[in-house]
Amino acid sequence: MSIITLYDIASTHPGQAWSPNTAKARQGIPHKTVFLEYPEIEPLCKKLGAKPTSQTSLQYTLPVIYDPSTDAVVSNSIEIAQYLDATYPNTPRLIPEGTAAFHYAFTEAFEATLPPLLVYTLPASLPFLNSASQDYFRRTREELFGGRRLEDVTPTGDEHAVMWKRLEDAFGTTDGWIRKNGADSKYFMGDTLCYADISVAGWLRWAKMVLGKDKWESILTWHDGRWASLMKELEKYNIVF
Amino acid sequence: MSIITLYDIASTHPGQAWSPNTAKARQGIPHKTVFLEYPEIEPLCKKLGAKPTSQTSLQYTLPVIYDPSTDAVVSNSIEIAQYLDATYPNTPRLIPEGTAAFHYAFTEAFEATLPPLLVYTLPASLPFLNSASQDYFRRTREELFGGRRLEDVTPTGDEHAVMWKRLEDAFGTTDGWIRKNGADSKYFMGDTLCYADISVAGWLRWAKMVLGKDKWESILTWHDGRWASLMKELEKYNIVF
Repeated sequence: MSIITLYDIASTHPGQAWSPNTAKARQGIPHKTVFLEYPEIEPLCKKLGAKPTSQTSLQYTLPVIYDPSTDAVVSNSIEIAQYLDATYPNTPRLIPEGTAAFHYAFTEAFEATLPPLLVYTLPASLPFLNSASQDYFRRTREELFGGRRLEDVTPTGDEHAVMWKRLEDAFGTTDGWIRKNGADSKYFMGDTLCYADISVAGWLRWAKMVLGKDKWESILTWHDGRWASLMKELEKYNIVF
Repeated sequence: MSIITLYDIASTHPGQAWSPNTAKARQGIPHKTVFLEYPEIEPLCKKLGAKPTSQTSLQYTLPVIYDPSTDAVVSNSIEIAQYLDATYPNTPRLIPEGTAAFHYAFTEAFEATLPPLLVYTLPASLPFLNSASQDYFRRTREELFGGRRLEDVTPTGDEHAVMWKRLEDAFGTTDGWIRKNGADSKYFMGDTLCYADISVAGWLRWAKMVLGKDKWESILTWHDGRWASLMKELEKYNIVF
């Protein structure tokens, strides 16, 4: 049987996804994951004919999938979700009919809130990487901070207190959007899980994996435990984090 | 019969709405419009008990509605749309079930693209205002541009060419989102009109009213005529622009 190949980023935790990409390919669709080191990403994408993702200065990014049953190569997690919804209509649909535009707009609005997360998660990711990826990661990520060493980016002391509150407020913006469906709204669309939830959970999973116990437990207390519940609920859906 | 009062901003065009707020209250729900001058907004909101809208430094903004049948006072156009959807379920629903969070996230993502519009529409709005509003408008809007005179804000010459392209690209972002529903997607949710469309049209209506014929006709050519079609389609829905 021909199964989808999901290309993901390798780490010192073999077999575990850590990058904040979608886990949709893990949900009911047979696939195998191939973990790559950062310097392998661009050559592989060019070989596969995967489109560069232009949102950042990093031209080629993962996840990318290759589906031998259609010979399709798809990059960018939201586009992968759309592709899988369209190609495998009998699996749970993550971008419900009529919500694709909203999902793309949401992704921009949500990611615009995340700079306070990146000052924590990017530096903390460095030790998770194999040596084959560390130089590439350091060079490209330090460029995002005007050349500051990643070790110097994470706020400490009073600066940490301020930034950590900013991060809580950033997730508070998303919590506020979800509450607009009604005070007891569990997911981004109310009772129905969608790609927006998976996307938020992907970023949270990254925080969980790299930030350490104290910071993660702090996050779990935010917004009446919304993020703790989300991570727990998603376990039920067999989405492997 | 008790009908809703919609408070809107007065201009030199009596009886015409020009501000980029929602036109939902005009759609099938009996209402009367009361036009206010800018300095009257805050005192009226305080008298009605309308909430300040905190998105900008302008604490109290219109639209605000007062509904005598429920004694409700609602400010902020998206909240008015939610209120009317909930209170008058037999009128066309503009924020479909499960899309409230998406509508709020969309509003942030869309408005984040609009600075290139404001450098044209804010200065061009000044001559539309009655003298009772002009000083207030000039003072508060010039603050947004670091105290520059509104007359000096609008780009000219080469700077105009660059900024006008940036404005086209800004609407191109929204066009790109809509196309994610499918290449022939007419509205933000595909075939179904929703508040997101009305909101985009409200901003376009503002441009149409204040920018003059040449600029408006330029906009109508953008993105395969999407905005021309949107404005035309909305006429069918008896939304008065």
